[in-house]
Amino acid sequence: MKKLTILGATGSIGTQALDVIRKEEENFSLVAVSAHSNWKSIINILEEFNPSYVAMTEINAYNEVVKYCRDRNKKTSVIFGMEGLNAISTLHEVDIVLTSIVGMVGLKPTFNAIKAGKDIALANKETLVVGGKIIMDEVNKHKVKLLPVDSEHSAIFQCLSGNSKDEVDKIIITASGGPFRGKKIEELQNILPEEALKHPRWNMGKKISIDSATLMNKGLEVIEAHYLFGLDYDDIQVVVHPQSIVHSMVQYKDGSVIAQMGTTDMRLPIQYALNYPKRKTVIGEKLNFYNMENLTFEKPDLTTFKPLKLAYEAGKAGGFAPTILNGANEASVELFLNKEIKFLQIGNILEEALNKFHSSEDLSIESIIDMDKKVREYVFKHFKL
Amino acid sequence: MKKLTILGATGSIGTQALDVIRKEEENFSLVAVSAHSNWKSIINILEEFNPSYVAMTEINAYNEVVKYCRDRNKKTSVIFGMEGLNAISTLHEVDIVLTSIVGMVGLKPTFNAIKAGKDIALANKETLVVGGKIIMDEVNKHKVKLLPVDSEHSAIFQCLSGNSKDEVDKIIITASGGPFRGKKIEELQNILPEEALKHPRWNMGKKISIDSATLMNKGLEVIEAHYLFGLDYDDIQVVVHPQSIVHSMVQYKDGSVIAQMGTTDMRLPIQYALNYPKRKTVIGEKLNFYNMENLTFEKPDLTTFKPLKLAYEAGKAGGFAPTILNGANEASVELFLNKEIKFLQIGNILEEALNKFHSSEDLSIESIIDMDKKVREYVFKHFKL
Repeated sequence: MKKLTILGATGSIGTQALDVIRKEEENFSLVAVSAHSNWKSIINILEEFNPSYVAMTEINAYNEVVKYCRDRNKKTSVIFGMEGLNAISTLHEVDIVLTSIVGMVGLKPTFNAIKAGKDIALANKETLVVGGKIIMDEVNKHKVKLLPVDSEHSAIFQCLSGNSKDEVDKIIITASGGPFRGKKIEELQNILPEEALKHPRWNMGKKISIDSATLMNKGLEVIEAHYLFGLDYDDIQVVVHPQSIVHSMVQYKDGSVIAQMGTTDMRLPIQYALNYPKRKTVIGEKLNFYNMENLTFEKPDLTTFKPLKLAYEAGKAGGFAPTILNGANEASVELFLNKEIKFLQIGNILEEALNKFHSSEDLSIESIIDMDKKVREYVFKHFKL
Repeated sequence: MKKLTILGATGSIGTQALDVIRKEEENFSLVAVSAHSNWKSIINILEEFNPSYVAMTEINAYNEVVKYCRDRNKKTSVIFGMEGLNAISTLHEVDIVLTSIVGMVGLKPTFNAIKAGKDIALANKETLVVGGKIIMDEVNKHKVKLLPVDSEHSAIFQCLSGNSKDEVDKIIITASGGPFRGKKIEELQNILPEEALKHPRWNMGKKISIDSATLMNKGLEVIEAHYLFGLDYDDIQVVVHPQSIVHSMVQYKDGSVIAQMGTTDMRLPIQYALNYPKRKTVIGEKLNFYNMENLTFEKPDLTTFKPLKLAYEAGKAGGFAPTILNGANEASVELFLNKEIKFLQIGNILEEALNKFHSSEDLSIESIIDMDKKVREYVFKHFKL
């Protein structure tokens, strides 16, 4: 029986993770969950899974959950804020922490969970984007498992299995291309948030849907892969594959390419990470090669989708550059969703932030969080209407 | 330094294997080679690689090689016939035997090589088709490695790496579909050997090219896979994939599909088998996903390409049935290449042979060879003009 904390239990990944453990209740015990403001879903989770701990990061939602537990005489510990996230990530009785929380806020609890010796099912890519070296050093020091939940990284992880890392020539991360694949800059001037949110293949949260539309999501994945698999940026290739059947690939130096394929069902990589090294019975559909669409592959357009190009540059620059890129992106996406900036401004703001702030090698969790804050303030100050 | 025997050194696989070891002369020493009648190529091999032993199975060719060695005072041992094949497969100094000889004739030397504790790079699929259980029992008994050289089986072998066999749902063997993919029975009435030999993707020997045109080759591969990977026939699926980029796949029970891809260069699986478990630097081209054709998948047509259906039936029947199927096929292909039967008769003759001869469980290398002989005699007697 694996004992589990889910950070971000009410989001897209969290909800699908609950579906995975629902179907394997003999294998998992849900010890703790967190959410930001969605207290109604947390109450449903309390009813169904009865976790011992809940962390809420929005004060009104926290109060609602406290009230609910008091009214029903529930013994659940409800903890507020970042303190709550850190507490439920380091609980003595927990084996594995699923970090399905979105954004920079995942960094510190993930760091603390690793220091507490917990295995990590990593769905929060920002953790590695901003804190890659620090995190990987702790992972190695504490000998915990860092199991990727992103479908791409899960694919690469599976394609590396049974092979020697020295024999890898490159990894090939596939990208659906998002809703604007094939479009040129002049066609993307007046994109509305609702258009950018319509992802052709994956059903995801808002932030990641916008990141998919700009290809920033792929850029974050490139940086994540750099740290997770210890590969040079020149050995990480992005290939647009609109059908999203091939989730990613590894090319070995003998020319052999190992690919992992699956349906676009996030429960597959979640289930894989939570059960690793075992594979359990499929929850959704299986691929059917007798009824398979044509699989196509193409080069990404780095001119139109500048954030991907900037991510390579920021990754190679290292230091605070990925933090600056990510902070500027989180702020810009928020502004775009609020219709305060235009779609193509996102890339321009990232570029401006990377030029404005200076990278340094004096990295720590605290200095990263500070830099992130500065960058966001800058973006909000200059671009918020 | 691996010491190597190549059975069938002048054929398509043998020639490509020589190219592999030519590029890795620091890793391989060619101890022995065999050929049937192509003494001119053998003399070139003697000049370049200077193996200590040569086996020739055609008497005039044998005499030519003997004469050549005598005239030049070469110390090469030249040995005739099946005795020669057996001798060079069991040499004390040899580590690995590449069985790139075509047809039933490969069975006995492969069997003997395994009993002598040699690792096998298996390119002779008939060995497992006719003697699967006996061969696998010896492989397990003598703890030798049986490394597949067929691109499909090499792919599956790679896709199983690092995974548990208990978690396999099925294997998916890809088939190019051959030169007549999409054609119906009425269009295949008057096919000439030269049309059937034009394989759209792979450059192969005559026998295997005809087998690809009838889909018998895929049938033999299904039976080979059954023994090599220990899977039920119902868990072996054939998918037509005309581009031959995906060499085969494994679907796991969690729905994840691991695929191996590569160019249509047989040196890739040869190099993999000879160097296993190491991967060496690619010899030919690498795949380029920025310039990749569309990959398509479809169900095979078992009505038009009856031999594939019959192979499943013979495999499931077990006993002598695969031997009967294979013997009838080897004889039929010879007759077709000599224009003594028509293309579609191949399937009919296989069906007739399977009905005529009776399977039994009393299998031994000798009884298999006897059955094969009887079947061929029957086919030649009834269908040779």
